[in-house]
Amino acid sequence: MTRPRRGAIDPASLPGEFALIARHFVPLAARVPGALGLTDDAALLDVPPGRSLVAAADAMVAGVHFLPDDPPALVGRKLLRVNLSDLAAMGAEPLAYLLTITLPKGTPEDWIAGLCAGLAEDQKTFGISLVGGDTTSAPAGAPAVLSLTILGLQDRGCALLRIGAEPHDDLWVSGSIGDGALGLLARTGGLPATLAPTQREALASRYLLPEPRLALGRALVGIAHAAMDVSDGLVGDLGHLCRAAGLGAEIEVAAVPLSEPAQAALAGDPKLMQAVLTGGDDYELLFAAPPAAEPRLRGLADQLGLRLSRIGRMLEAPVDPARPVEVRDASGALIALERAGWSHF
Amino acid sequence: MTRPRRGAIDPASLPGEFALIARHFVPLAARVPGALGLTDDAALLDVPPGRSLVAAADAMVAGVHFLPDDPPALVGRKLLRVNLSDLAAMGAEPLAYLLTITLPKGTPEDWIAGLCAGLAEDQKTFGISLVGGDTTSAPAGAPAVLSLTILGLQDRGCALLRIGAEPHDDLWVSGSIGDGALGLLARTGGLPATLAPTQREALASRYLLPEPRLALGRALVGIAHAAMDVSDGLVGDLGHLCRAAGLGAEIEVAAVPLSEPAQAALAGDPKLMQAVLTGGDDYELLFAAPPAAEPRLRGLADQLGLRLSRIGRMLEAPVDPARPVEVRDASGALIALERAGWSHF
Repeated sequence: MTRPRRGAIDPASLPGEFALIARHFVPLAARVPGALGLTDDAALLDVPPGRSLVAAADAMVAGVHFLPDDPPALVGRKLLRVNLSDLAAMGAEPLAYLLTITLPKGTPEDWIAGLCAGLAEDQKTFGISLVGGDTTSAPAGAPAVLSLTILGLQDRGCALLRIGAEPHDDLWVSGSIGDGALGLLARTGGLPATLAPTQREALASRYLLPEPRLALGRALVGIAHAAMDVSDGLVGDLGHLCRAAGLGAEIEVAAVPLSEPAQAALAGDPKLMQAVLTGGDDYELLFAAPPAAEPRLRGLADQLGLRLSRIGRMLEAPVDPARPVEVRDASGALIALERAGWSHF
Repeated sequence: MTRPRRGAIDPASLPGEFALIARHFVPLAARVPGALGLTDDAALLDVPPGRSLVAAADAMVAGVHFLPDDPPALVGRKLLRVNLSDLAAMGAEPLAYLLTITLPKGTPEDWIAGLCAGLAEDQKTFGISLVGGDTTSAPAGAPAVLSLTILGLQDRGCALLRIGAEPHDDLWVSGSIGDGALGLLARTGGLPATLAPTQREALASRYLLPEPRLALGRALVGIAHAAMDVSDGLVGDLGHLCRAAGLGAEIEVAAVPLSEPAQAALAGDPKLMQAVLTGGDDYELLFAAPPAAEPRLRGLADQLGLRLSRIGRMLEAPVDPARPVEVRDASGALIALERAGWSHF
């Protein structure tokens, strides 16, 4: 009798959960020897000398972070990308990821196959592989919960941290702000009826498939004093950066970069500015850099083919630590910011 | 005006989710500078030269892995321990962990406080800290889902892998087998009415609070050829080890170590042997070692004050790869193993 190749698993010989893992998840782990074909209790990864491990985790819940009938391939790709965005914010490079999925009983295997097809596609795009995780069931009717832990590498001492912001630093953002929040509204009927279908779709696709700014993050090491990704809304996230640094900040509404579809949506309903500034799901980088860095940043924008916009500046400690971010209109007047949103528009 | 200390967060100034994180989770991250007080997008960890990172993730779902009214402190401790058990199986040392929790709307803050109190207690016990994660909500009525990624360290090339098992290796297990599965039955009314309450409670507590065999795992490096932890049931898990190694195995039922409460339960209902062998939740180590290692293993058992039992051996490739594990009774006769359990008892 021929002895089977070591580590070779015949999915047909396994009980349900393990057959699913062998069919759909093991192929995602093929590139990394230390993933051990997902057959072991843990994965083994090497961190080269002089580099630090960078680790973050973000979960997505059906009905909260995605709609239950969203294409599962896009759900998988977004899950990977929102985590990669956390690496981008630290200026780190992707290394590997672990995934735990909790699926209600009765989830079609096609859904899992679609999820994994999306993960496989973006694994190639970002040069990363699955190395471990867990597959569990929940009662029928429970929402699917997907939790991903991303691991990356950064030269020791070089990570971009929120705490590094200095008073009088300029504040910059990449790309455009608000498309993700408007994209969610596009899917739930919250945009003006006058908006063209193509613009509606452009916004929806930004919500479904964000672009982690990994190349920008790496290039900002040595230029920016602090960075983070905008995931929970520009004003709220900038507040976190302010708290970490013990500083205040001000931004000018007119300087916040908007895509053409976002401008069209705002032309139809100026109140949507509230969603743009506080709605989240941008996954652009927000960073603080000294004013002298402007020429290098302009050059970097050209080199990466990525818009970089100066939207404001860091301030000394704010009068009201509960609201460290001041938002100003074109005339310099302070815009009153309600907890739940804007009162100005 | 005094500038606030950098990185200092006043929970009162934060919106709900972030206030919860500041109150309950940030204190769990205090020991590790690279956790950055959980204020950043990711954590930074150093892996010393010559060591590998060991990474695993396991999730627990309310109503599946724990009962919704279980004390939250025990839920937190079990979650940490089942993940630590994966490090133990590789012979690794704990480094840090990330946690994503998905809680239905309306979860009392006391529940989160209890969870974190349990995590804090076991962080001390095992010398580990939280370094990152995510807190998300789910609709009211959804089950709580807790996903933990554990990170550990192992000398490069020294991890215990399942693939290393050799034909004619002895198979050993630590501690006693079946207490976890019987403990679950104790909680759901599945044990004989004759069983004393103290024995019932002893079994239930083994289910609620497993003991990761970290010291044993580290000591087995250089002795055992292969190791894994028993989480899904002795026979099923040994099947995974067989498939990874391309081998078969046989175990003798009479050699499987039972605790005194388990023996009492089996005396009342011999059919419970099925739960002992296939029920899971043991979190003992199962390992393969050459016969010549027996004296060292006996000495190790004395040194650690931990029972180590030889329960069988690895075989050449089995006749039926779908059932690589042969289970024999005291006379050496093969016990027919149904997919769902035992037909013998």
